[in-house]
Amino acid sequence: MRVELITIGNELTSGEVVDTNAAFMAELLSEAGLEVVFITTTGDEALRIEDSLRRAQERVEVIIVSGGLGPTKDDITASSAAKAMKLDLVLNREVLENLKKRFAEGGMEMPISNEKQAFFPRQAEIIPNPMGTACGFIVRRPGKVFIFLPGVPRELKVLMREKVIPFLEKERKEKVLVRSRTLKVFGFTESAIADLLKDVRPQDFSATLAYLPRYPENHVKIIIRGRVAEEAEDNLRKLESLIREKLQGRVIAVDRETLEEIVGQLLRAERANLAVAESCTGGLVARRLTQIAGSSDYFERSVVVYSNAAKVQMLGIPGDLIDRVGAVSAEVAEKMAEGVRRVSNATLGLAITGIAGPAGGSEEKPVGTVFIALASPKGTVSRRYPFMGDRDQIQTISAYTAIDWVRRYFLNLIPAFKNL
Amino acid sequence: MRVELITIGNELTSGEVVDTNAAFMAELLSEAGLEVVFITTTGDEALRIEDSLRRAQERVEVIIVSGGLGPTKDDITASSAAKAMKLDLVLNREVLENLKKRFAEGGMEMPISNEKQAFFPRQAEIIPNPMGTACGFIVRRPGKVFIFLPGVPRELKVLMREKVIPFLEKERKEKVLVRSRTLKVFGFTESAIADLLKDVRPQDFSATLAYLPRYPENHVKIIIRGRVAEEAEDNLRKLESLIREKLQGRVIAVDRETLEEIVGQLLRAERANLAVAESCTGGLVARRLTQIAGSSDYFERSVVVYSNAAKVQMLGIPGDLIDRVGAVSAEVAEKMAEGVRRVSNATLGLAITGIAGPAGGSEEKPVGTVFIALASPKGTVSRRYPFMGDRDQIQTISAYTAIDWVRRYFLNLIPAFKNL
Repeated sequence: MRVELITIGNELTSGEVVDTNAAFMAELLSEAGLEVVFITTTGDEALRIEDSLRRAQERVEVIIVSGGLGPTKDDITASSAAKAMKLDLVLNREVLENLKKRFAEGGMEMPISNEKQAFFPRQAEIIPNPMGTACGFIVRRPGKVFIFLPGVPRELKVLMREKVIPFLEKERKEKVLVRSRTLKVFGFTESAIADLLKDVRPQDFSATLAYLPRYPENHVKIIIRGRVAEEAEDNLRKLESLIREKLQGRVIAVDRETLEEIVGQLLRAERANLAVAESCTGGLVARRLTQIAGSSDYFERSVVVYSNAAKVQMLGIPGDLIDRVGAVSAEVAEKMAEGVRRVSNATLGLAITGIAGPAGGSEEKPVGTVFIALASPKGTVSRRYPFMGDRDQIQTISAYTAIDWVRRYFLNLIPAFKNL
Repeated sequence: MRVELITIGNELTSGEVVDTNAAFMAELLSEAGLEVVFITTTGDEALRIEDSLRRAQERVEVIIVSGGLGPTKDDITASSAAKAMKLDLVLNREVLENLKKRFAEGGMEMPISNEKQAFFPRQAEIIPNPMGTACGFIVRRPGKVFIFLPGVPRELKVLMREKVIPFLEKERKEKVLVRSRTLKVFGFTESAIADLLKDVRPQDFSATLAYLPRYPENHVKIIIRGRVAEEAEDNLRKLESLIREKLQGRVIAVDRETLEEIVGQLLRAERANLAVAESCTGGLVARRLTQIAGSSDYFERSVVVYSNAAKVQMLGIPGDLIDRVGAVSAEVAEKMAEGVRRVSNATLGLAITGIAGPAGGSEEKPVGTVFIALASPKGTVSRRYPFMGDRDQIQTISAYTAIDWVRRYFLNLIPAFKNL
């Protein structure tokens, strides 16, 4: 079954809003083994919506439409659909009663404008929307299925996952079962990953691999198609473990997990806490770690020591050391990590100092030169990195690398600590 | 002239990449007064690309295509275009020579695969690409113009701005001149802005206004259409100043400026510097300020005092004060601001303490309760805010509000300081 997506809204054709709904739907459909062949976007204009629907049914079997189901006069998808398919628009009493009940529960009378959200093309199958007033609906025509969904991303996502994908999987004659997993890799380039995985034969596992750059991560997505769930899951497990082995501990998280969540879980499991001293990352390490709910359990503090005075004063770094070797140096990074660990009494002290640019580079220490240090019960280590990119990229990859050091510490992947 | 955009790439129809190119092009075209009526996306497949081109020319006058101009065998836009328009694909010797020269300058021989980037439909007008090997091109058909651009966002953006928009403005028979400005508003909701501007009559200035929510900002975009540049610019100036007056100092930046840039400019102009003490924002204030190149000139430090121990130890906040009034309080916020100002010797000390959630709220101080304080040569002020939303939204709006306090301080917009 080939699919066309139609996304509707003036905010899309004017470029005010980026069409993330289309990408979301396309990704979910691809994962389910359904091919999206066209995506059409048009504004809230009846003739254009009708034109899009008619052209779509000439070229695919499944048409999924999002947007234009709201209560305002701009929202004309249902009536345009009825016209394009030559069906009457009829009132669904059950939906109307539910809408009224919904408003009554909120202590309000239903505005008259919402009444139109109870009108659908004749024979439409309703997709209830637990999160909003715009129900989705399905209309069948010979050999074709039209699915209409609200454009609010939160609502669309739930209806796609919970209703549309299961519905299409049932519709599909050829029963194909799809299992997928995204391995998030950090620390190898896309071509390095391809090289490390060159002897992996995904076809031996009825799988395909997709490589998705997601700066600063690179994702390897395993997609398994099969007929028997157990077999597919077994193949997925085996291929994942093979790839993980080849990637030498550089898989930082899977699917929707983030690096910061994994690091938080490790810190929590070890009853450890973390203090950070940041220079060139300017608070980004702290920001990322504290995006996670509950991070106060293990994140003790960060000091963003942008000035040399702050480094000396807050972390006890000898002023003459900075004069002698420079603030961007292994020695200062190590002193920062040890200093923040000491003053905070945390299990781990993590430090970053470097040159994010665009100014401040020298021949010896060009823009992108970054030192990362970790002070721990096992001692202190530091490393110099030659990062590339603009200011934002250098800050991002520096913060990522530093946070990943904590993961690598707990997984015993830091070479200098290995034999301790 | 009506426009259809066609974006090409398997990464788009599979949902691996969100189509930001389409939104970028649509926004630029709208600003220039050109209406985008359809956006079509399809994969790297010859028949589908041809189908998209043929359908587009049935319904609009200008077709802009992006993607598929690279050197690999997936890149088939030029050949598909030639087929759809029934034109030969011919070698452009000048482009070929330039490509070879480009590689030679990099010390390399041109790979044979790049040769195809010198083939274009007969009569195509070349759009040179100073940033890459994929030139754009223009093909005219009776009453229609086809414009082809590379899909690399960086290259597409420059070619759109510098070549395509000026080209289309020349093509347009009815000479309409467009001037626009985006006023970025922070501190008023969209409906509050609409209310404050209800007596503003944009039509008196040959203007239209668009309201664009860009959390946590709300943008008011002024678009002026006219025939005489001076008149349009005069209208823009007058309408902008009228709106600014109505919005009472809540316009934080215009067009591509950011709040952090404006705050940086103000600090620099006043030869002042800033130190920050953050709790619930977890480093986000520091992160945002240090994204700006050169921020080390005025950003002195930030301490992310997540634990109470850090607050006591680094900022000299009396431990019994925290016990008495709680870490989330006006008193502690003020002591944090004064403490970080004192230890850093900075002109301004800014502090944020609050409950970002999802846990940690109480009846008296629910999730979203945030105190912001500013310590300055004029004294110290603080305020309690009742923010709404999830953790990320509360952190974002808290950081924004705090940074905006610095702007308001220098513009003399903080009421408590007004008469000092």
